[in-house]
Amino acid sequence: MQLQFARRMSDIKASEIREILKVTEKEDVISFAGGLPAPELFPIKEIDEVSRGVLKESGTKALQYTTTEGYAPLRKWIADRMNTRLSTSFDEDNILITHGSQQGLDLSGKVFLDEEDIVLCESPTYLAAISAFKAYGCHFIEIPTDGDGMVMDFLEDVLKKTNGIKLIYVIPTFQNPTGKTWSLERRKRLAELSAKYSIPVVEDNPYGELRFEGESLPSVKSFDAKGNVLCTGSFSKIFCPGFRIGWIAGDKEIIRKYVLVKQGADLQCNTIAQMIIAEYLNRYDIDEHIRKIIAIYRKRRDVAIECIGKYFPDNIKYTRPEGGLFTWVELPENISSRTILDTCIEKKIAFVPGGSFFPNGGKDNSFRINFSNMPEEKIDAGLRMIGEVIREYIDGLH
Amino acid sequence: MQLQFARRMSDIKASEIREILKVTEKEDVISFAGGLPAPELFPIKEIDEVSRGVLKESGTKALQYTTTEGYAPLRKWIADRMNTRLSTSFDEDNILITHGSQQGLDLSGKVFLDEEDIVLCESPTYLAAISAFKAYGCHFIEIPTDGDGMVMDFLEDVLKKTNGIKLIYVIPTFQNPTGKTWSLERRKRLAELSAKYSIPVVEDNPYGELRFEGESLPSVKSFDAKGNVLCTGSFSKIFCPGFRIGWIAGDKEIIRKYVLVKQGADLQCNTIAQMIIAEYLNRYDIDEHIRKIIAIYRKRRDVAIECIGKYFPDNIKYTRPEGGLFTWVELPENISSRTILDTCIEKKIAFVPGGSFFPNGGKDNSFRINFSNMPEEKIDAGLRMIGEVIREYIDGLH
Repeated sequence: MQLQFARRMSDIKASEIREILKVTEKEDVISFAGGLPAPELFPIKEIDEVSRGVLKESGTKALQYTTTEGYAPLRKWIADRMNTRLSTSFDEDNILITHGSQQGLDLSGKVFLDEEDIVLCESPTYLAAISAFKAYGCHFIEIPTDGDGMVMDFLEDVLKKTNGIKLIYVIPTFQNPTGKTWSLERRKRLAELSAKYSIPVVEDNPYGELRFEGESLPSVKSFDAKGNVLCTGSFSKIFCPGFRIGWIAGDKEIIRKYVLVKQGADLQCNTIAQMIIAEYLNRYDIDEHIRKIIAIYRKRRDVAIECIGKYFPDNIKYTRPEGGLFTWVELPENISSRTILDTCIEKKIAFVPGGSFFPNGGKDNSFRINFSNMPEEKIDAGLRMIGEVIREYIDGLH
Repeated sequence: MQLQFARRMSDIKASEIREILKVTEKEDVISFAGGLPAPELFPIKEIDEVSRGVLKESGTKALQYTTTEGYAPLRKWIADRMNTRLSTSFDEDNILITHGSQQGLDLSGKVFLDEEDIVLCESPTYLAAISAFKAYGCHFIEIPTDGDGMVMDFLEDVLKKTNGIKLIYVIPTFQNPTGKTWSLERRKRLAELSAKYSIPVVEDNPYGELRFEGESLPSVKSFDAKGNVLCTGSFSKIFCPGFRIGWIAGDKEIIRKYVLVKQGADLQCNTIAQMIIAEYLNRYDIDEHIRKIIAIYRKRRDVAIECIGKYFPDNIKYTRPEGGLFTWVELPENISSRTILDTCIEKKIAFVPGGSFFPNGGKDNSFRINFSNMPEEKIDAGLRMIGEVIREYIDGLH
């Protein structure tokens, strides 16, 4: 007799990114696959200094259990930062520290979703959000997007006509995978629709600090009159991902529910990592650090966009993101990016095929390019190669 | 209109321990509440040294994303250690690194449990395992235990007669909360019943390395002919909890499923913490460190048992654990340990009332005493005070 697993297990697939990451761990691969930050920018010397200080001054505290909510000075910093940058009005009790913003998504599923519930999301959307929510047995309705973000009339129509909607999931700034940024008007309108239909919004924002150009925009949360919007954030892209420290922020009563489910999930986040980050923020100027990251990523974005324009056939489309880590490429509809990837992998080039970013499938002609993790010459070489593979493939069709 | 939360949220309560921990964070409280290790034993100097080495030699790797499975050298060490100490036959691919052994429980819920499924557990059992599993909408059947562990005839009777059983959860060594250890015969029998009825077992073992006296026993897993037993473990009690590094071990195909759900839950554990622990294990003798912990905890256990015998009324029962962190006290049936706790908290003494450890409620006359976190004189003073409170309460009843 076989063991019986939960029903959800028949539906859970390996994350395509995580599987490709295993291939790209070999050093000679040019990878546009992961959302990996540039490791050469990690403030290693500063982390070493701060870490020694934390161990010396408060070693027993840093290595012991702490509260589920997380380290208070870090939560305070996050609240202040969000208030300044995203026009929210939080204090530390609005913040729960999580294992990356990814855990904020998993906990959101636990707090809001029963089996057969419906989640609304952008089409395409972040693939590991799909896995996080799917684990709670939900279905997805994909809402189309244009250059200004999610199409609000379509969204309202779905909200009006559909029973069982429990959550709206969005990434309004430098979206993953498309790199698109929502207009102010759409942000405001989403908050209004969330209030009108009493549907909570998870506003995922791991990249918002990495703006290369243009005006910063207030969060959806800043227009939230009812307390229905939850915001995630992360130190992975502005500091380093190896500590796995992110957060979820929102109405205190709702965050209290997240705290309860986190207690059962893993008790709390790494104490010492939280204290090291808090002390780093105290001793060093993170804005200066972020400016360094932005300068490098902007150049890489420029090279990537230029190379796509130069090396890819004319009949493809791609986005030009104002920040973040990704651009999104659409091939002619009869070309599967998985086929292109297979040939590219042989040539030691990797990217993520677009199909995985559509919870209900389809759109295999698209793919995502991460430009933050490779030096400019490799971006050039890699995209040139992908361009050749696509051209050869198209030639072979005729 | 109110937001609609998942059905499970009406059932999830705050962990009593985590709430009491907040009270005990004040330094003048004598706390027998948490399962906190003694912080004065944390190898701070060694961690500082190792941490500097890791940052210097492999900083960019330590601060970057890594695979969901976890850092390979650490998984290899864990497999070898379990093979030596618990008579298993694992290699690194049997091991998934988790955020403490707690996350192993949460992931077990996700892998195995649908709503209305049934989990079998010891009565009483670890309270945060109850929360972890309950989040998946399961019910519990509590199986009675005696001095040798779970009563196997009772267990088999339940297995025979009950539909919908999906998991058996046990802590066979220095059980939380009772401190009891299962006999060899019961371990073997559980593995046999698990195979016979094709029901997976989660064998939770966070304390097994902390044996003060008597013979080490092989794991339930070592008798598992079918690959149905999963084992959790943790560095929290033998090294330090602040890193939140534990593991779950088992059959490779099943662990693969755990990896998939962990991808959606939080991508991976803290990279640098895994590398620091691996390097510590490489450079230092953890057995020597564990011997130090055992020596101190054994003395504290001795003091605690002696004080309970000396200060508590005669008509109470308590366990004498051969290792671990806890002893378990049963008051006469008409006394609620929550009432006793209320008076104790006023006197700045804390412990965890027993009721929370019974998933189906009842048994409010019991409580758990942790003896690992307080120096001997505070154990004496605190237990004397608890004894007085109990005596006064009993006197007031007459």
